[in-house]
Amino acid sequence: MSEPFNTWQARFEKLRSNKLFEGVVISIIVISALVIGAKTYEETSRIEQWLLYLDVAVTVFFLVEILIRMAAERNLVSFFKKGWNVFDFLIVTASLIPMDDSEMVLLARLLRIFRVLRLVSMIPELQMLLGALVKSVPRMGYVVLLMFIIFYIYAALGSFLFHNVDEFLWGNISVAMLTLFRIATFEDWTDVMYATQEVYAWSWIYYLTFIFLTAFIFLNMMIGIVLDVMQKESAQLDFDSGEGEPAQLQALRSDVHSLKAQLDRMEAALAERNTASPPPNSPTDSAKTD
Amino acid sequence: MSEPFNTWQARFEKLRSNKLFEGVVISIIVISALVIGAKTYEETSRIEQWLLYLDVAVTVFFLVEILIRMAAERNLVSFFKKGWNVFDFLIVTASLIPMDDSEMVLLARLLRIFRVLRLVSMIPELQMLLGALVKSVPRMGYVVLLMFIIFYIYAALGSFLFHNVDEFLWGNISVAMLTLFRIATFEDWTDVMYATQEVYAWSWIYYLTFIFLTAFIFLNMMIGIVLDVMQKESAQLDFDSGEGEPAQLQALRSDVHSLKAQLDRMEAALAERNTASPPPNSPTDSAKTD
Amino acid sequence: MSEPFNTWQARFEKLRSNKLFEGVVISIIVISALVIGAKTYEETSRIEQWLLYLDVAVTVFFLVEILIRMAAERNLVSFFKKGWNVFDFLIVTASLIPMDDSEMVLLARLLRIFRVLRLVSMIPELQMLLGALVKSVPRMGYVVLLMFIIFYIYAALGSFLFHNVDEFLWGNISVAMLTLFRIATFEDWTDVMYATQEVYAWSWIYYLTFIFLTAFIFLNMMIGIVLDVMQKESAQLDFDSGEGEPAQLQALRSDVHSLKAQLDRMEAALAERNTASPPPNSPTDSAKTD
Amino acid sequence: MSEPFNTWQARFEKLRSNKLFEGVVISIIVISALVIGAKTYEETSRIEQWLLYLDVAVTVFFLVEILIRMAAERNLVSFFKKGWNVFDFLIVTASLIPMDDSEMVLLARLLRIFRVLRLVSMIPELQMLLGALVKSVPRMGYVVLLMFIIFYIYAALGSFLFHNVDEFLWGNISVAMLTLFRIATFEDWTDVMYATQEVYAWSWIYYLTFIFLTAFIFLNMMIGIVLDVMQKESAQLDFDSGEGEPAQLQALRSDVHSLKAQLDRMEAALAERNTASPPPNSPTDSAKTD
Repeated sequence: MSEPFNTWQARFEKLRSNKLFEGVVISIIVISALVIGAKTYEETSRIEQWLLYLDVAVTVFFLVEILIRMAAERNLVSFFKKGWNVFDFLIVTASLIPMDDSEMVLLARLLRIFRVLRLVSMIPELQMLLGALVKSVPRMGYVVLLMFIIFYIYAALGSFLFHNVDEFLWGNISVAMLTLFRIATFEDWTDVMYATQEVYAWSWIYYLTFIFLTAFIFLNMMIGIVLDVMQKESAQLDFDSGEGEPAQLQALRSDVHSLKAQLDRMEAALAERNTASPPPNSPTDSAKTD
Repeated sequence: MSEPFNTWQARFEKLRSNKLFEGVVISIIVISALVIGAKTYEETSRIEQWLLYLDVAVTVFFLVEILIRMAAERNLVSFFKKGWNVFDFLIVTASLIPMDDSEMVLLARLLRIFRVLRLVSMIPELQMLLGALVKSVPRMGYVVLLMFIIFYIYAALGSFLFHNVDEFLWGNISVAMLTLFRIATFEDWTDVMYATQEVYAWSWIYYLTFIFLTAFIFLNMMIGIVLDVMQKESAQLDFDSGEGEPAQLQALRSDVHSLKAQLDRMEAALAERNTASPPPNSPTDSAKTD
Repeated sequence: MSEPFNTWQARFEKLRSNKLFEGVVISIIVISALVIGAKTYEETSRIEQWLLYLDVAVTVFFLVEILIRMAAERNLVSFFKKGWNVFDFLIVTASLIPMDDSEMVLLARLLRIFRVLRLVSMIPELQMLLGALVKSVPRMGYVVLLMFIIFYIYAALGSFLFHNVDEFLWGNISVAMLTLFRIATFEDWTDVMYATQEVYAWSWIYYLTFIFLTAFIFLNMMIGIVLDVMQKESAQLDFDSGEGEPAQLQALRSDVHSLKAQLDRMEAALAERNTASPPPNSPTDSAKTD
Repeated sequence: MSEPFNTWQARFEKLRSNKLFEGVVISIIVISALVIGAKTYEETSRIEQWLLYLDVAVTVFFLVEILIRMAAERNLVSFFKKGWNVFDFLIVTASLIPMDDSEMVLLARLLRIFRVLRLVSMIPELQMLLGALVKSVPRMGYVVLLMFIIFYIYAALGSFLFHNVDEFLWGNISVAMLTLFRIATFEDWTDVMYATQEVYAWSWIYYLTFIFLTAFIFLNMMIGIVLDVMQKESAQLDFDSGEGEPAQLQALRSDVHSLKAQLDRMEAALAERNTASPPPNSPTDSAKTD
C-alpha cells in the first residue's frame, strides 16, 4: 500500500471511532426517522419540498458515512464480514435507487423506514440486547413446533365442524388458524364460541381444551426461557469471577493436602527418631504405630 | 425362530433405524397433514380425486410402515409395550375402516387429523417436551380442585342471584361457570357486570372478589410450577455432574478425617516415645498430656 | 368422667379418624354440592320434592357428623380452638334455621352453597394450599396500598376531568375507580379513551401513564411474591434436611477445631519432652517453639 | 443560637418524631383524600360549605405541620436536602394560592389530589417500595428504546399502508403508534385487522409479526427485571448476614492456615530436637525430613 493511502485510512479510522462523529451519525438517523414520521401527516404538503431536500441530504450523508467506514477498513472483505455492515450497506445503497416512477415511491419509503434500525447498528447496548433475543430463539424451536401442531389439529377440526356456522372465521384451515390465534389472545373469543354453540351446544369443550392447552404450553415455554437465561447468566458469573465458592473450596482442598504432606514428613521424622534414639524395650510397639 | 425370518427381522430393524427412512416417514406425515388442510378449502373439489388417491397412498404407506416396525420387534408384546406404538397402531388401523357411509366420512376425517400427532411419536425432542408437560400436571391437581370449588361456589351464587337478569349467561350452574371462565379471561367482563349492576348495584363486589381470587390462585399455581421445574432441573444437574459443591465438601471432610487418623498415629508414637525414653522427673506430666 | 362416657368418646374418636367415615363425609359434601347445582336448573321443578328430601337428609347427616366430632373431643373448648371446626359449626347450625319465610329462602340457599367449602376443611392438602395462599397476603399489603393510592389519584383526576364526557364511567370517584380497574384489565379500554379523546385530545397520556404504572407495579408485586415463596421454600428445605451445605461446613469446622486441639496436645507433649530430656545447648530455642 | 430557640427546636423535634403526631398527620391526609373524593359526588352540593371549611382546616394543619418540621431541623438547607421534604413543601404551598378565579379552581383541585401522595412521604415502607420501583427503571432503559424503535417502524409502515383504510386509526404516525399500543394489549385487535384485511388480504402478517415481536421482547424485559432484582436481593442478604457460606469458607481457610503455622512450629521443634539430641548414625536423614 502506498504511504498517502495509509495516512488517509488512519485518518478515516480515527474519524470512525470519534465519539462526536458517532453522535452526529445517531442524530442524523433520528432526524431521518422524524422526517419519515413527518411525511405521514397530511398537513406536511406545504413543507414537502423541504422534507425532500432534507431526505436527499440524509441520503448523501449516509453514503459518505458508509464510504468512510469502508475506507477505514484494511480491505472490503473484512468490512462485509460484519453482519451489521452488510445491513447498513444494503439500506444505504437501496436509498440511492431513483424513485421517479410513482410505483417505486412506496418501496423507497419503506426502505427509508428501515433506516431507523441503523440505530441498533450504532448503539452497542442495543446490539447486545438484540443478540440476547436472537440467542433465546433456538430453545423455543420445538415448543413452537408443538404449538403449531396443536393449532393445526384444532384448525382442521374447527374448519370441518364449524365452517357452516361462520364461513369468515372457519372457512378453511388458514382462517381457522387465525381465528384460533385470536382465541389464544382472549380477543372476543366468547363471540366466536356463542355463535358455534347455537349449532353445536357442546362446542365449549373445543374452546376450553384449546385455551387450556395453549396457555399451559405457553407457560412452560416461558419458564423454559427463564431457566435457560438464568443458567447462562449464573454460568457466566462463575466464569467471570473465578472467585466463587468452587474456587474457594479448591483452594481449601489444596491447603489440606499440603498439611497432609507436612504431617507425612513429620511422621517420618518422628519414626526415624524413635528408631535412631535408644528404643530399649519395645521396638515392635514403635513399628506397630507406623 | 427360522433362519430366514431372523434375517428379515434384522433387515427391518436396520430399515426402521435408518435416518433416511425416518425422514421419509416424517415427510409423509407432513404431506398427510397438508392433504387434510387442503380439503378444508372449497376450491379443492376439482382436485378432490387426486387428494383421494393421495390419501389412499398415505394410508397404505402408514400400514406398511407400522408392519415393518412390528416385524422389527422380537415379538408383538414388546411392540405394544410402548405407549406411542399403541397410539400409532390405533391411528393407522382406524384409517382402514371403509367410509362409504356418508355418516362415517366425518369420523374418518377426524381420525386422519390425529395423524399429525404422529409427528410427536417420530421426533424424540417433541416426545421429551410432551413428557415434561405431562409430568407437571400432578403438581397442579389440588390447585385445580381449589379453583373448581371457587368456580362452583361463585357459579351457584351467580345463578341464584342473576338468573333473572340474563338467562343466557346465568341460567343454570353450567352456563354460569362458562360465564365465570369468560370473566376470568377478562373477555368483555364489564358488559356482564354492567348488566347485573342495573338490578343489583352492589354486584361489582361479586366480580372483583372473583377476579382477585382467581388471579391470585392462578399466580400461585404458576409459581408452584416454576419452583417445581427449577428444583427438578437443579437436582438433575447435581446428579449428572457429581462434581458439585456437595461432592467437593464430602471429599474435603474425608481428607480432614485422614489427617486426624494420621495425627492419632503420631500422637500415639509421641506418647510411646515419651514413656519409652527416660522420663526422669515428671511421669505425671506426661500422663496429663494424654 | 364416667366410664361409659369415656368408652363412647373413644368410639367417636375412632370413628372420626376412620378413613371410610371421612370418605362418606366427602361424598355427602359432593352430593350436597350437586343438589345445590341441580336446583339452578329450571327443569328440576318436578323432582324438587326429592331434592328437598335429599337436602334434609344432608342437613341431618352434617348435624350428626359434627356432634360426633364434638363428642370425640375431650371438651368443647378444644373443639372450638380449631378455626375449621368453628367454620363447620357455623355452616351446619346456619342450615338448621327454618326457611318457611320466603324472604329467608335465598339466605338459606346461599348458606348451603358454602357447604362446598367444607371440602377444604376435610382434605388436608387443600388446607395446606389455602394456608400458603393466606401466608403470601401480608407481603403484598403495602403494594396493594400503593396501588390503591395510584387508583385513588387517577380516579379523582378522572372524575374531575371526564365526568362531563361520560357520567356513567366517570360520574364520581367510585365509578371512576371501577372504570380504572376495567382499564387495568385491558377490557375495552380504547372505547373509554376514544370517548374522552374527542373532548380532550391529550387524554391518551392519562391512560398510557396509568397502564404503565399499574402494569409496572403489578409486575414488581408478582416478582416480590415469587422471591418470597422461593426464599421460604429453600429455607424450609435447609431446615428439613440438616444435610445442606451450611451443616456440612459446620461439621467441617468442628473437625478442624478438634484437629487443632489434638495438635495443641501434641505440641505440649513435644515441648515437655524437649525440656524433660537433656536439652544440652539451646534451652532458649525450645522456649521459642512454644 | 439563643437558648429559648434551641429549647423550642428540641420540642419541635420531639413532636415530629412522636408516634401520635405521625398518626394524626396520616389521619388528616386520609381525611383530605376523602374530602377530595366526596367532592366528585353531585349530591355534595348541600354540604359543600362544610367541605370548604374542612379543606381550609386541612390546608392550615398541613401548613403548621410543615412549619414544625422546618423548625425541628437545624437549618433550612438540611430540610430541603431530602427530596420528600421538597415534595411536601411544594404540595403545601401550592394549596395556599387563592382560588377565587374560576379558572384556577381546577388547578387547585388537582393540586389537592396530589396531597394523597403525602401518604408515601409519611410511611417509610411505601418510600422503600417506591425506591425499589425507581431503581428497577434504568435496567429497562435500552429495552424500552428497542421497543420504541419497533413501534416507530411498524407505525410508519402502518400509516403508509393503511391510512386509506381507516384515517382514525392509521391517519399519521402518532395515532398509528396508539393503535399499535392497543394491539399490543390485545384490545379488539382483530377488528383493526379484519378492516385492513378487506383491502390488503396479507395484512395478518403485519399484525402477527408485531404481536410476536412485542410479546417476545416484553417477556425478555420481564425476565431481565426478575433476574436483576434476585441478584441484588441475594447480594444484599450475603452482605447483611456475613454468615453465609462465603464467610464460613473464609473462616475455615484461616483455621486451616493456623493449623499449618502450628505444624510449622512443631516440625521445627522436632527437627531441632533431632539435631540437638545425639543423632548417632544418620544426620543426613534428619536433614532430608526438613
